Amino acid sequence: MIIQLNPGISATERSEIIDVVHSFKYKTKEVNTQKGEYVIGIGKTDFDIRQIGTLDGIKDIHIVSDDFKLVSRKWKVQETEIDLGDGVKIGNGHFQTMAGPCSIEGEENINETIQHLKENGLKIMRGGVFKPRSSPYSFRGMGLDGLKMWYKAAKEAGIKIVTEVMQVSQIEEMYDYVDIYQVGARNTQNFNLLDELGKVDKPVMIKRGISGTIDELLQSAEYVFSGGNERLLLCERGIRTFEKASRNTFDINAIPILKEKSHLPVVADPSHGIGLRDHVEPVALASVVAGADAVIFETHCTPELAFSDGQQTLDFRESARLIKKMDELIQWRNKI
Amino acid sequence: MIIQLNPGISATERSEIIDVVHSFKYKTKEVNTQKGEYVIGIGKTDFDIRQIGTLDGIKDIHIVSDDFKLVSRKWKVQETEIDLGDGVKIGNGHFQTMAGPCSIEGEENINETIQHLKENGLKIMRGGVFKPRSSPYSFRGMGLDGLKMWYKAAKEAGIKIVTEVMQVSQIEEMYDYVDIYQVGARNTQNFNLLDELGKVDKPVMIKRGISGTIDELLQSAEYVFSGGNERLLLCERGIRTFEKASRNTFDINAIPILKEKSHLPVVADPSHGIGLRDHVEPVALASVVAGADAVIFETHCTPELAFSDGQQTLDFRESARLIKKMDELIQWRNKI
Amino acid sequence: MIIQLNPGISATERSEIIDVVHSFKYKTKEVNTQKGEYVIGIGKTDFDIRQIGTLDGIKDIHIVSDDFKLVSRKWKVQETEIDLGDGVKIGNGHFQTMAGPCSIEGEENINETIQHLKENGLKIMRGGVFKPRSSPYSFRGMGLDGLKMWYKAAKEAGIKIVTEVMQVSQIEEMYDYVDIYQVGARNTQNFNLLDELGKVDKPVMIKRGISGTIDELLQSAEYVFSGGNERLLLCERGIRTFEKASRNTFDINAIPILKEKSHLPVVADPSHGIGLRDHVEPVALASVVAGADAVIFETHCTPELAFSDGQQTLDFRESARLIKKMDELIQWRNKI
Amino acid sequence: MIIQLNPGISATERSEIIDVVHSFKYKTKEVNTQKGEYVIGIGKTDFDIRQIGTLDGIKDIHIVSDDFKLVSRKWKVQETEIDLGDGVKIGNGHFQTMAGPCSIEGEENINETIQHLKENGLKIMRGGVFKPRSSPYSFRGMGLDGLKMWYKAAKEAGIKIVTEVMQVSQIEEMYDYVDIYQVGARNTQNFNLLDELGKVDKPVMIKRGISGTIDELLQSAEYVFSGGNERLLLCERGIRTFEKASRNTFDINAIPILKEKSHLPVVADPSHGIGLRDHVEPVALASVVAGADAVIFETHCTPELAFSDGQQTLDFRESARLIKKMDELIQWRNKI
Repeated sequence: MIIQLNPGISATERSEIIDVVHSFKYKTKEVNTQKGEYVIGIGKTDFDIRQIGTLDGIKDIHIVSDDFKLVSRKWKVQETEIDLGDGVKIGNGHFQTMAGPCSIEGEENINETIQHLKENGLKIMRGGVFKPRSSPYSFRGMGLDGLKMWYKAAKEAGIKIVTEVMQVSQIEEMYDYVDIYQVGARNTQNFNLLDELGKVDKPVMIKRGISGTIDELLQSAEYVFSGGNERLLLCERGIRTFEKASRNTFDINAIPILKEKSHLPVVADPSHGIGLRDHVEPVALASVVAGADAVIFETHCTPELAFSDGQQTLDFRESARLIKKMDELIQWRNKI
Repeated sequence: MIIQLNPGISATERSEIIDVVHSFKYKTKEVNTQKGEYVIGIGKTDFDIRQIGTLDGIKDIHIVSDDFKLVSRKWKVQETEIDLGDGVKIGNGHFQTMAGPCSIEGEENINETIQHLKENGLKIMRGGVFKPRSSPYSFRGMGLDGLKMWYKAAKEAGIKIVTEVMQVSQIEEMYDYVDIYQVGARNTQNFNLLDELGKVDKPVMIKRGISGTIDELLQSAEYVFSGGNERLLLCERGIRTFEKASRNTFDINAIPILKEKSHLPVVADPSHGIGLRDHVEPVALASVVAGADAVIFETHCTPELAFSDGQQTLDFRESARLIKKMDELIQWRNKI
Repeated sequence: MIIQLNPGISATERSEIIDVVHSFKYKTKEVNTQKGEYVIGIGKTDFDIRQIGTLDGIKDIHIVSDDFKLVSRKWKVQETEIDLGDGVKIGNGHFQTMAGPCSIEGEENINETIQHLKENGLKIMRGGVFKPRSSPYSFRGMGLDGLKMWYKAAKEAGIKIVTEVMQVSQIEEMYDYVDIYQVGARNTQNFNLLDELGKVDKPVMIKRGISGTIDELLQSAEYVFSGGNERLLLCERGIRTFEKASRNTFDINAIPILKEKSHLPVVADPSHGIGLRDHVEPVALASVVAGADAVIFETHCTPELAFSDGQQTLDFRESARLIKKMDELIQWRNKI
Repeated sequence: MIIQLNPGISATERSEIIDVVHSFKYKTKEVNTQKGEYVIGIGKTDFDIRQIGTLDGIKDIHIVSDDFKLVSRKWKVQETEIDLGDGVKIGNGHFQTMAGPCSIEGEENINETIQHLKENGLKIMRGGVFKPRSSPYSFRGMGLDGLKMWYKAAKEAGIKIVTEVMQVSQIEEMYDYVDIYQVGARNTQNFNLLDELGKVDKPVMIKRGISGTIDELLQSAEYVFSGGNERLLLCERGIRTFEKASRNTFDINAIPILKEKSHLPVVADPSHGIGLRDHVEPVALASVVAGADAVIFETHCTPELAFSDGQQTLDFRESARLIKKMDELIQWRNKI
């Protein structure tokens, strides 16, 4: 059960509400986010909400039978819109494309990419400075210094930044230099990280786990929301299956299912979803017509020389062609 | 290695070619299809084709490193076109939508569906008369009598038929009443069935196995082709994964990968691919922009009352809307 | 609902029972096997059996909530025993080991293997004469002639034969030359084949599908049982997962789960289950202590030269060592 | 390439070795653990070790073609033995059983369990005080205070403790109260956590990821080893598959494969591996005969009342029976 509280509710009203909810055998969790205050009732599912609906201080009450509550569309039918400032919005009818290299590689790489993005009308750049790598001997990214260099150049160019945060201690040091924190597929169930990201007032994009279910992704988002941060995006990036012809199996089904279950915007990552440069385009286009609110893909001036993920990275010519096709499909989508 | 023979090659020339190929330690298989004669060289992969290229009777020679040979795009770059007659073609730029009930249920069901197809410009009707069912106690279809009734009505209306053949003994009895034989997901590796379908001059649509790989699907097609029938279609219908929110995981990646690896047309089955009526449309649309040559989906006058698969079956209003949207995307696809 | 009928029930009694069951909105299926006669009531699950329990001709009535009925342990707690004659039994406390080559390769191969089996006290030889192969260009087995040659030698040596039947037309021609029909992993849901094997009075061992669930395996067994043949064995042979270090993932869990859900004997196939010669032994031993009623594995005089599956085939020295260790564990198992 | 350095190597010798290795185009990583000093050469695989073998300060050189180096059995054939003190050892012939509740629940729960362990000859107790939970609203464990209470009681009773560490900040605060740090299945690829555990001189048990491959588990262990801590255990706990009859699919194959690929001890977790209380025993026994160096399972005085995982937790009577059976199989294993 989700109880939305009135803005400016008094402490007395609030505590009375909680007492009454407890008296009906619910456990409660109080949630305060950027946009509102909530009391979550947990553990009981059969209940007549009229029994508490008349208490002072309550704006609205919703029974949500899903295990995830606050991210469920059962109480919030209206799609959530993530506003990055400067007119850059995602969700609720606003579509964005995010592109950039797998790893941030240096000043030249940053500038070339920003130039490419601007020429093609993109507003958000992706790139990794903290890289999770299976092997301890692989390149692990340029770190905080790389992020600062990148942010400075992006800021000047009017470009927003999305990049992965790998651990709690990085949240604060990255704070001034990111527009969207990305939680990677290996950290989808790093619950401490999710808890801490709940305390931050910056958008968080959570990638689905490598073999994570749709429900687990929504539960992970619930962690951040119930921690106090409701500026969330969900990202489908392919799941692990027996198929070896592709790196992962992009779960196109997840897009309409996530949008039905949750009010949060859904981002598609076709680069990891198929892992084959030649076929990133059709998967990206498929995501758009399936209803994605954003697409994130890897592009690099010369993918053959990229520090990582070159095999799934588009060059700028391929990237420009994809962006143009996506624009046409977005127009078609907006028309119908 | 694939050796294409000249039409009208003499027996002497043919046997000399085979002798020479054997002398290079290849095993051979002779293949005669509707469209040509081939000698397949098996078992050796390092070879200079000039050593046999000058023999009389040879039209062309191709080294194909894939395990599947005749269905590979490495020797036949041109996309295969399946001509069902009366101007109904699939592949090589021709797109078709096939629709109909999961099971053929009777005369009224047939007539309503045909009417719906004609109103919406479709040329091919799907439906099952032999139904593979997990439980022996479930409805197993109307059988041959149902097929004859259906075919009569469809023929009169100018509608083609695609339906599943489950066993060797059915091939002949169904022959006069089908336009496309469908091999179901549980029979993808029923090699005897594939062998026998190789001897028939009717198109065959092979569905990917429930957890079949892309390579296995192509190998299964190779069975039919090398048996003598090159009028083949490949169908992606979702694979089995750990995800429980959908019936299967539609593998959108498979569409561009199959089209890269093979010259055969690729059909998408979003109904089985997601298994959720409300979300068949986005998956179907995604398939179209990802490059499918055809889409096959389930529709029924009143899905709630369908004998089987009602939970993934569109009603006629939803079906009409989907067909219209697909038409628009096909136009967009043809334009770019 | 399963109604066991009295032996020698009259036609009038039988038809009265069926009428009454129909009057309670059940559909019925009559099943006559080697061991008994049953009426299966399908489609209704809430019912007081006392309402029909007093009818003449009824031996016993059981409500079975599983989708599979006759193979369920909910009505038959006693484990089924498969008697192959000459004192060779499987299940209900009787353990057997079956071994032999992947493919039957010829007289010498047959004789060497039989010799090896006899020296190590085994009673059942495995081997394929009809081989399902992913590629149409691979060796497909010696066929019926090979089977006859094999059977003659085995019969003389007092060895029983288990071998795969791939299609309906082979059932009859193989009948005189097999002791156990094997249904392969690609045919687990070849329902026509299962239907026809229901009409035969020879034991049938059904392998789990390549990505088949435990429930699907039981449903497939239900096909054969409800077709009239209750001499059935279930075989776990590994499932397809994302793991690439082994050919399949042997599902050790399936052994105790199958034995809880069904009264049928459970056979373990560690050769396909892991696909690595060096590790067949530990998986076989694990199966024994997990409760398998039989183990089937591949052995060959010189695995390096085997026509197929050499990488997972034990040589005779390894085979003898495994058999000895299994014997010790069976003794331990019988003691506790 | 792994270069083992002589104890007491001089700084000059060391830097000369590294220079020479660099001159052959290797990158290097210096590793100092509790037991030795190593230089790892990365990135080149074709090399004649005699070219550097004569340098001063080198104890031994090994070419390791695996992506994981230090945990590979290709350079260290001898099995690693983890010594927990007081004669409690795991690996290299020493077998241990670890048991206890899913979550530490309080003093009574601790004392009952310790009592049970002592009565049955166990030396290591498992239990969670920091619990990773899919839902933010579930019980998350007693935390550090619970750990201290538990450790005090265990220490007095001569029992060692294994418990999960979820994040970097917990490593230090837990240090005085654990005998083995456990890395959970959701943190197998939490690379920062692994890096930091490399700096600690306490054994670390790494669980395989929920859908992690065997190679990924070994790479994760490589992180800790190359960080400086070679006191490592690998734990198989079941992987995620399509099968729904069990919680996970216990990968019995992983036990012999891990032992072949690595010198580290392998622990089996049948409780999570099957997730069904009635069937934990056969999977545990299977693990023992498949070669596990330790088994960890969940037990509780009254599983029905356990705070978490009750459905897969043995009561003390079941636990005692399992321990006794494992003892017998260990004796059998030691004898052969």
